[in-house]
Amino acid sequence: MNSFEELLKKRRSIRDFEEREISLPLIQEIIRESTLAPSASHGQPWYFIIITNRDVMKRLSDECKRSLLARIEANPEIPLSGYKEALQNTGFNIFYNAPCLVYIAGHAETGSLDVDCALLASYMMFSAAQRGLGTCWIGLGAHIDDPEIRREIGLSDVCRIVAPIIIGYPASIPEPLPREEPKILKIVS
Amino acid sequence: MNSFEELLKKRRSIRDFEEREISLPLIQEIIRESTLAPSASHGQPWYFIIITNRDVMKRLSDECKRSLLARIEANPEIPLSGYKEALQNTGFNIFYNAPCLVYIAGHAETGSLDVDCALLASYMMFSAAQRGLGTCWIGLGAHIDDPEIRREIGLSDVCRIVAPIIIGYPASIPEPLPREEPKILKIVS
Repeated sequence: MNSFEELLKKRRSIRDFEEREISLPLIQEIIRESTLAPSASHGQPWYFIIITNRDVMKRLSDECKRSLLARIEANPEIPLSGYKEALQNTGFNIFYNAPCLVYIAGHAETGSLDVDCALLASYMMFSAAQRGLGTCWIGLGAHIDDPEIRREIGLSDVCRIVAPIIIGYPASIPEPLPREEPKILKIVS
Repeated sequence: MNSFEELLKKRRSIRDFEEREISLPLIQEIIRESTLAPSASHGQPWYFIIITNRDVMKRLSDECKRSLLARIEANPEIPLSGYKEALQNTGFNIFYNAPCLVYIAGHAETGSLDVDCALLASYMMFSAAQRGLGTCWIGLGAHIDDPEIRREIGLSDVCRIVAPIIIGYPASIPEPLPREEPKILKIVS
């Protein structure tokens, strides 16, 4: 049992995992605990897709790389272009060979979808850290355009992925990146 | 010192506060701890505005009510219309007479602003709960259109408020609202 202070130190973005699989009941327990997050008007707009099949994860990684490179090609000025070289590297799996990927998604027309799912993602990352697991929000992993692979993972046209979260047992835990001083625009006292 | 399990139970949305003020150093400590949240490409795009002046908070509440009612007037079909009666109630302070309001904001053009600030807000709500404080994300509180009041609180035109978080000592802590079963669209194993 960790104190919150310990969890704050422990919760790092992990991109280096042991081979070890995570049991499905454990993933479901973490998802259930994550739904204790607050949401706008208690709307709970979140849906989940759990992927533990490494072949499917590899294909999802390839599909995201393809669709992201197409976007960069169409518009080389976008900030994404900084990732071009990594995305062109065929050996690079954007999910870092994690044993599990959870997509947090929802109906694309829900106004508060982004913030609600991000709150839930934060709970999920703490809940996993609490159990000795490591996570990373893989922003690049949301770009699944191909209708066939969307169908295969149960992602309908009306759904939008907000947070692709990889989960696994950390092989190493990096030091925290330094934080900037909080930018306080004004104190109105 | 609370365990994470205890914090999960303790972190409720609080709308009923003691009169007691919160010290500015304590608010700043919570803000600093919140910046341990992860952000896209470690961008840390968050800015903060701290408001502890109750007159200013009352005027911000009035401004949000005015601008929200104008939106409802212009488009009665929007979901916001459910709040019409409350917003017309002159006795209703949308910030529930909390002693402190923290605006989490950022440059409107930052692509990941919503999710980054929501992750930070989640950290802030845990960090406050850890110190015996209560919080609530007041979605209605972000709608500050009036240029004069924006200037007064240091909110420039390029800034967008993502999360208005009220903070105070809870006068009462409500029971958790029941959660739906997690909607798992598919398990790909």
